[in-house]
Amino acid sequence: MFRHTSEFHDWFAERRRTRGHRVTPTRLDRLDGWSFHPETGNLEHRSGRFFTVEGLEVDTDNREVGRWAQPIIVQPEAGILGILVREFGGVPHFLLQAKMEPGNVNLLQLSPTVQATRSNFTRVHRGNPVPYLEHFLAPRRGRIVFDALQSEQGSWFLRKRNRNMIVEVTEDVPLLDGFCWLTLEQIGELLRVDNLVNMDTRSVLSGLPGSWGGTSGRAGAEDRGLHRMAELLSWFTEAKAAHRLRRRRLPLNGVKGWSGSGDRVEHEDGRYFSVIGVDVEAEGREVARWSQPMLAPASRGVIAFLTRTIDGLRHLLVRARTEAGCLDVVEMGPTVQCAPDNYRHLPRERRPRFLDEVLGAAPARVLLDVVHSEEGGRFYHAENRYLVVEAGEDVPLDAGGDFVWMTPEQLGALARYGNHVNVEARSLLTCLRFLR
Amino acid sequence: MFRHTSEFHDWFAERRRTRGHRVTPTRLDRLDGWSFHPETGNLEHRSGRFFTVEGLEVDTDNREVGRWAQPIIVQPEAGILGILVREFGGVPHFLLQAKMEPGNVNLLQLSPTVQATRSNFTRVHRGNPVPYLEHFLAPRRGRIVFDALQSEQGSWFLRKRNRNMIVEVTEDVPLLDGFCWLTLEQIGELLRVDNLVNMDTRSVLSGLPGSWGGTSGRAGAEDRGLHRMAELLSWFTEAKAAHRLRRRRLPLNGVKGWSGSGDRVEHEDGRYFSVIGVDVEAEGREVARWSQPMLAPASRGVIAFLTRTIDGLRHLLVRARTEAGCLDVVEMGPTVQCAPDNYRHLPRERRPRFLDEVLGAAPARVLLDVVHSEEGGRFYHAENRYLVVEAGEDVPLDAGGDFVWMTPEQLGALARYGNHVNVEARSLLTCLRFLR
Repeated sequence: MFRHTSEFHDWFAERRRTRGHRVTPTRLDRLDGWSFHPETGNLEHRSGRFFTVEGLEVDTDNREVGRWAQPIIVQPEAGILGILVREFGGVPHFLLQAKMEPGNVNLLQLSPTVQATRSNFTRVHRGNPVPYLEHFLAPRRGRIVFDALQSEQGSWFLRKRNRNMIVEVTEDVPLLDGFCWLTLEQIGELLRVDNLVNMDTRSVLSGLPGSWGGTSGRAGAEDRGLHRMAELLSWFTEAKAAHRLRRRRLPLNGVKGWSGSGDRVEHEDGRYFSVIGVDVEAEGREVARWSQPMLAPASRGVIAFLTRTIDGLRHLLVRARTEAGCLDVVEMGPTVQCAPDNYRHLPRERRPRFLDEVLGAAPARVLLDVVHSEEGGRFYHAENRYLVVEAGEDVPLDAGGDFVWMTPEQLGALARYGNHVNVEARSLLTCLRFLR
Repeated sequence: MFRHTSEFHDWFAERRRTRGHRVTPTRLDRLDGWSFHPETGNLEHRSGRFFTVEGLEVDTDNREVGRWAQPIIVQPEAGILGILVREFGGVPHFLLQAKMEPGNVNLLQLSPTVQATRSNFTRVHRGNPVPYLEHFLAPRRGRIVFDALQSEQGSWFLRKRNRNMIVEVTEDVPLLDGFCWLTLEQIGELLRVDNLVNMDTRSVLSGLPGSWGGTSGRAGAEDRGLHRMAELLSWFTEAKAAHRLRRRRLPLNGVKGWSGSGDRVEHEDGRYFSVIGVDVEAEGREVARWSQPMLAPASRGVIAFLTRTIDGLRHLLVRARTEAGCLDVVEMGPTVQCAPDNYRHLPRERRPRFLDEVLGAAPARVLLDVVHSEEGGRFYHAENRYLVVEAGEDVPLDAGGDFVWMTPEQLGALARYGNHVNVEARSLLTCLRFLR
């Protein structure tokens, strides 16, 4: 336990210093165990497990561009992202792990207690068993706080989801090397530090009920807000019913505008992302050495909520967002979610709505501005600027078909049902919980 | 308005007498506008609209049989099933319609205010406009009570869903010929009559919040029961994560054991269902005359909840059920849902669990026993016996992995989020609402 977060930072810095990790970018066509399929050009592991990189053609009426094709990660197995909670001195503490992921700009970040792909826990890697996993597999002794299948980046993954779990135990739990207990308040402080609390931790914590504290701690507040919950669900249903998302799987070498083999997979204009290879040497992981493809975004993204106070309650402007890999037609996303560089070649009217309001806001209106990483197990140096910005007077209460104002409590309640809130919005929701 | 339901029955009998409807079974290969595709054998309409009958191969670990192939209806468009509500003298009344559907054993049943496929309301049929539709299309003036995309028969439809809506209005609404206003109490009485309240009406009404009356009328009761809501959601997540549902589309003429062309599509042993053709002549429909394929079950099914009182509250034994056409791996279904005849050739241990408890229950334990029809627009003479049976002492509180006890209020709360509760369970939930 840390009395002050400065003690945490000392512990974390010590771990960073003493553990040897090395990540070396490598040509995809020389990546150990991985190869391009001779016919389709799909990138595959020789075991047939883990994931593949394939092509996808998308046709939708709910994006700035109506039709496109792109490479996409196909990983049908759902892993487990689990956080263990236990009270010490009457205060709930969350068990997090200083974990190396090859894609992290700083390698080490704070991950959930368990962050395991199905291949991990069924031991395809032939690595060490996953510590604390038994608390998250049935039959469990602990008390379930939260448990839902949640989507991950729809721009990069086809229908990927992970099981997000929070389990509370009362028994003693041994504290293993590399793990630490943190209070919600301490996590709140660490969430204001760039690239420290990883995406999986942010995602899982978004499922914590409001009654668990933080500054927005009212339970049963689901009908308090500009709209009742029935209206919000209807808005979501309307968005699903009104929009089109048609998809067709393609061989990776059939994706126009992308190079589908060789040292990396990339877009002809250098936009969006590349697929690169890395060789990894790690201490404190199930496997000490491995090679894998990673998706490397071409530029930093912006993930932002516009917020305003309505009838004395904070509201967020939520967008029903369609992405290439969505499980259903839309999920609820932040007001703005994009990599601005990807839109520079488009005319002004096709830039994402509210992007300019967010980036041009006066400093006094910016309530949160922090850089966080996306999952370092699949994404290489994928950073996003997470913002919460007070909306100007010109953003109306009725913001239009795909946008709706709701309270963080309402969004949180929806997140507890799987596949309603996308990972970017969940991540930002967790940060918001600790806003003054 | 009817003061007594006897007045309703007079009105309904009068309509049955005076409207001319005729349904004539016809060979599929002579069905106007429909044909078998020369290569795939899929049954298709010449416009490319409405629906097709194709083949599906299923591989799952959550059914009595692990692997099979079958014909299935593919209808990707979501229609609207909407009920309009208005208070008269302080009492909410629901606007229902005496509607002919060619598959109904008795042709005429009580349908929602609006029961329209997307082809209906976009006028592919070139028929008359759908009355009252404007109350269910955005922008709407009424108050949304319920609005969710809900699944339909997963054994017969591939990922089919319809938008279920309840909209409350305060303005005057003209009462058109063939429609009637009924109170919830009157509908409750009519639900005890065989084959009268149609499937779509039962499905939509399952979304009505408990606070709207009936005998189980407590709002906010979602955490009251043997399990908290977080535990129920976790049980559902576990079922999705633990089970496998892999599917592959097949050409209809590639489905082994089924004849895929000619006068009808049927199973070689006469089990499960057939696809037949019908010519229809109708009064009071958008189109006066048409032909279509229909799915005709081989025998009557059983849809049943076991129930018991736990801590003073009625609980239902809900099953996480996998079906061929599920949108996701499982949905919540009744305790028993099957056509017993389909299992006669299987050894006793592969009969559906709890089927014998339900069919063999002493009369005093049978709280509900009524025959209702499945949707008469696609299913021909598809009847199910809907049962609610008091469980014996031998059914434990921990009934095993795929079964869980929950209150009707909890199941109702879950139904208000789309794709959680299957159509059979929703239908029975509506009937349950009015149990003494």
